[in-house]
Amino acid sequence: MAEELKERFGELLRYAKHVAELTNRTIEEIVKGEPQYLYEAAIHLIRAGGKRLRPLATVLAGRMYGLPEELGVKAGAAVEILHNFTLIHDDIIDRDNLRRGVPTVHVLWGTDVAIIAGDLLFAKAFEALGKLAEHAPPERVVKAFNKLSWASITVAEGQALEFDMVKRDEVTVDEYITMVYKKTGALFEASLLIGAILAGAPQEELEKLSRYARGIGIAFQIQDDILGLTSTEEKLGKPVYNDIREGKKTILVIYALKHLSPEERGKLLSTLGKKDATREELEEAANLIKKTGAVEYAKNEAKKYFEDALSALRDTKPVDEEARKLLEDLGWYVILRGK
Amino acid sequence: MAEELKERFGELLRYAKHVAELTNRTIEEIVKGEPQYLYEAAIHLIRAGGKRLRPLATVLAGRMYGLPEELGVKAGAAVEILHNFTLIHDDIIDRDNLRRGVPTVHVLWGTDVAIIAGDLLFAKAFEALGKLAEHAPPERVVKAFNKLSWASITVAEGQALEFDMVKRDEVTVDEYITMVYKKTGALFEASLLIGAILAGAPQEELEKLSRYARGIGIAFQIQDDILGLTSTEEKLGKPVYNDIREGKKTILVIYALKHLSPEERGKLLSTLGKKDATREELEEAANLIKKTGAVEYAKNEAKKYFEDALSALRDTKPVDEEARKLLEDLGWYVILRGK
Repeated sequence: MAEELKERFGELLRYAKHVAELTNRTIEEIVKGEPQYLYEAAIHLIRAGGKRLRPLATVLAGRMYGLPEELGVKAGAAVEILHNFTLIHDDIIDRDNLRRGVPTVHVLWGTDVAIIAGDLLFAKAFEALGKLAEHAPPERVVKAFNKLSWASITVAEGQALEFDMVKRDEVTVDEYITMVYKKTGALFEASLLIGAILAGAPQEELEKLSRYARGIGIAFQIQDDILGLTSTEEKLGKPVYNDIREGKKTILVIYALKHLSPEERGKLLSTLGKKDATREELEEAANLIKKTGAVEYAKNEAKKYFEDALSALRDTKPVDEEARKLLEDLGWYVILRGK
Repeated sequence: MAEELKERFGELLRYAKHVAELTNRTIEEIVKGEPQYLYEAAIHLIRAGGKRLRPLATVLAGRMYGLPEELGVKAGAAVEILHNFTLIHDDIIDRDNLRRGVPTVHVLWGTDVAIIAGDLLFAKAFEALGKLAEHAPPERVVKAFNKLSWASITVAEGQALEFDMVKRDEVTVDEYITMVYKKTGALFEASLLIGAILAGAPQEELEKLSRYARGIGIAFQIQDDILGLTSTEEKLGKPVYNDIREGKKTILVIYALKHLSPEERGKLLSTLGKKDATREELEEAANLIKKTGAVEYAKNEAKKYFEDALSALRDTKPVDEEARKLLEDLGWYVILRGK
């Protein structure tokens, strides 16, 4: 990341590091057991890195309504574990061999073990949340459980929508937004809401946080789409142009398909989803997308969702103003991190 | 099933049918949504049949301590949904093409969709349990959630233990019992305990139910191993000798490997796990197993676990004696069904 960003987000990044350390410790306590090889497979990607932005969001949203940081971390660990479960299964499905700079779980342990390791993490996320029962009123814990179930269901639906979109040449931006909200936004939303629910925040505050999370979640994914086209393998920790190879209908691809000439459109479609596409073909497809102005369009869309998110957050009535400020910084960080 | 069994278990089977109908209705309400194809994949095996013995156990254990049948069904549906999630992923891993007389989910929708459909059911099980929050005290619902998480974790561990056992030639009966308890028994135990927990049963009663469930669960799996060797494809709804083809260390195989001559042992080992074994090879392996007396040994082991289970059940202090009687019948049914 550029030096000026590190400076701008100094306070956020220090706090993020603090929360990440606490979260990692919590996860290490939860994700252990027998047989050892299964647990090693399950925790592999977690140990390989990750920004822990979801637990950070849980802790901050919790703090906004008076939840002690310690409980926010316990709940945030549950969300992070759930997130990593989705990564293991996604990597199998997308045939991704590299994530966070390391070989993926199915590459190291085989698909069968990777399926079960993902299932184990899924269950461990619920176990982690259940541990809150010793520290928070049971009716809040039940609500938090329900939010985690909802997020898991929604993520699966989002994944299935994406499968369907990969197969179709015609996809609208609205369909993309729905898919992205389900696949990525819902879990980010749950991260925030679980923190606020455990703190006992009133319903109208939960709704404002939902709107914030929805906006940031969508902006985040759009940003991810952009980075997948414009960043480097070194920065991403995985190959660039993966999205093109997998035929993903990113917002950039959807925009480009609508704005290219019929001939160029055919050219792009022929590379989209071509598993054995060469580096040259991928670069040509990427350039076709870029020349339509898709990147600028996507950046602008991300900005719109981002601004709506910030406006919702500014409307909240927190007891801890510093936590809200950090959550706002987190939003900015998400949108600026790739620049 | 033989006519005399139908008569002996007449009352149980009538009640099982009643609970199955209520359970199916509940599941149909929970497992629906968009995209439709994902939900069709998720509910496919559930619609194809299944005895719904787990929800029946939930309802009966709940009734034993005063839980209304209606709430037992809601909780039982959660357990049944979770069970079917494990079947979808198991079928992918075991490359099974047929279950309950129909093609498996990955055969019809492909592995990628089957992984997600399983994940969806997993999440839906927790959603289903969360619906109890409207009807039961939240501290009981939290305990039920924790039991369902525990069962999911334990099933994954059991599956991983089995992977490991498939690879090894030397496996002990103790290892088998641990694996079977985790892979099959734990979810049956959770089925009972969730019913009793929601009813507010005291801890000492939960422990007796655990012992009952553990015994029945293990006896059930031993029985399943026996049926896999001695039944017909028509009765099983799946090919016989699958276990041999997959190299599973069933209790029969473990016993046979210990009691065959070195030459015959080598012969059996050469067919175990041979994916392209011919019908003749499979039959020869099955005969080697049978001639050691493994079937009789396994039946006897099942009986021991079964009797311990019954003794624990008879020790309980239920408020609904009829429910306990039916649960005892359920135990007998499990052990006698294949005869």
